[in-house]
Amino acid sequence: MDATPIGLNADFGYVILVTISAIIMSWKVGYQVVSARKKFNVQYPKMYSEDDRFNCYQRAHQNTLEVFPIYLVLQIFSGIYAPRFSAVCGLIFVLGRLVYAAGYQSGDPKKRLYGTFAYIGIGGMFVCSVVFALELLQIMKW
Amino acid sequence: MDATPIGLNADFGYVILVTISAIIMSWKVGYQVVSARKKFNVQYPKMYSEDDRFNCYQRAHQNTLEVFPIYLVLQIFSGIYAPRFSAVCGLIFVLGRLVYAAGYQSGDPKKRLYGTFAYIGIGGMFVCSVVFALELLQIMKW
Amino acid sequence: MDATPIGLNADFGYVILVTISAIIMSWKVGYQVVSARKKFNVQYPKMYSEDDRFNCYQRAHQNTLEVFPIYLVLQIFSGIYAPRFSAVCGLIFVLGRLVYAAGYQSGDPKKRLYGTFAYIGIGGMFVCSVVFALELLQIMKW
Repeated sequence: MDATPIGLNADFGYVILVTISAIIMSWKVGYQVVSARKKFNVQYPKMYSEDDRFNCYQRAHQNTLEVFPIYLVLQIFSGIYAPRFSAVCGLIFVLGRLVYAAGYQSGDPKKRLYGTFAYIGIGGMFVCSVVFALELLQIMKW
Repeated sequence: MDATPIGLNADFGYVILVTISAIIMSWKVGYQVVSARKKFNVQYPKMYSEDDRFNCYQRAHQNTLEVFPIYLVLQIFSGIYAPRFSAVCGLIFVLGRLVYAAGYQSGDPKKRLYGTFAYIGIGGMFVCSVVFALELLQIMKW
Repeated sequence: MDATPIGLNADFGYVILVTISAIIMSWKVGYQVVSARKKFNVQYPKMYSEDDRFNCYQRAHQNTLEVFPIYLVLQIFSGIYAPRFSAVCGLIFVLGRLVYAAGYQSGDPKKRLYGTFAYIGIGGMFVCSVVFALELLQIMKW
C-alpha cells in the first residue's frame, strides 16, 4: 500500500473519553424515558402515548439517537486529525444535548431549542473532518 | 503490540468526503420532515400523523437513520482497505438513498423501492470489509 | 504530528468479522418486522399498529438500532486496543441481542430481558475503551 501512515496521537485519548461521556449522556436521557413510562403509565411495547408530556421524554431520547451516528463518525474523523480540538467540540455537543433533553422534557417542545448550541460542536467537527480529507488528498496544505 | 501497522492511505480523503456527503443527504431528508410538519400541520412532539402522506416523509427519514450506522462502519472498514472502491460504493449508497427518499415522499410507499440500488453500494462495502478481515487474519492472500 | 503510531493488529480481523455478524443480526431482526407486517397486515408507512403483537416485533428491531451506534464505536475503540477480548465481547453482544429479540417477539415484552446479558459485552468493551484512553494519555500504564 502506498500509505502515509497516520498514527493515533496520544491525545486521541481525550477523544475516546469525550465519546464515552456522550454514550453516558445518551444512557441518561434513555433512562429518563424508562422513568417517564412509570410516571405516565405507558406500558411496553407502546412507543408513544396519548399524553404529549410522555412523548416529549420519548422524543428527547429518540432525537439524541438520530444524531448519534453522525456525531460519532465526525468525532472519529476529526479526532484522528486534531484530537484536542475535536474533544472540545465533542464536549460542546454533549452539553448541548443535555440542555436539549432538559428543555424537551419540560413538556414545552420549543424549549428543546436552547440546546441548539450542540451544533456548534457538530459544525466544528464537520469542518475539521473536511479539512482532514482535503489535506489527505493534498488539495489543501497548511 | 505485535502490530502490522495499517496506515491510512491518502485516498482515505475520498472516503471522508463521501461520508460527509452522506451526512448532508441525511440532513436534507431530515429537513424535508420539518417542512412536511408545516405542510401537513403536525406539531412536535407528535412523531406520526393520521395523514399517511406525512408519515411517508417521516419514514423516509427514519429509514435513512436506521441504515446509517451500518453504512458508516462498512464505509470505514472498507475505506481503510480499499479507499477508492469504498468511496464509489459510498456514492452509490448516497444516490440510492436520495432516490429512496424521493420515492417514499411521493406518497406511494412502493416507489421507495426505486432506491434499492443503494444496497449495491452496501454490498460492495460489506464484501470489501470481509476480504479485509480475512486478509488481516491471513486466511486469504491476494 | 507527535504521533505514537497505533497500528491495527492482525487480530483486528476478528473485530471486523464480529461486527459483520452484528450487522447480519440486525438485518435478521429487521427482516422479521417485514414478515410481521404481512402476518399482522400492517401496511407501509404505518410504523406501529393497534396490535401489540406486531409492536413487539417492531420494538425488538428498533431497540436493536438504538443500541447499535454505541455498540459500533465501543467495538472499534476496544478492538484497536485489545482485538481478541473485544471480539469476544462483541460476540456476547450479538448473542444477547438475538435472545432479546426472540424474547420480545414472543409477545410478552418482559421476556426481552432474558437478553440483558448483551450488556456484559457492552460493559467489557466500555471498560476496555476507557483503559485504552487512559493508557494513550499515559494516566495509566500496564
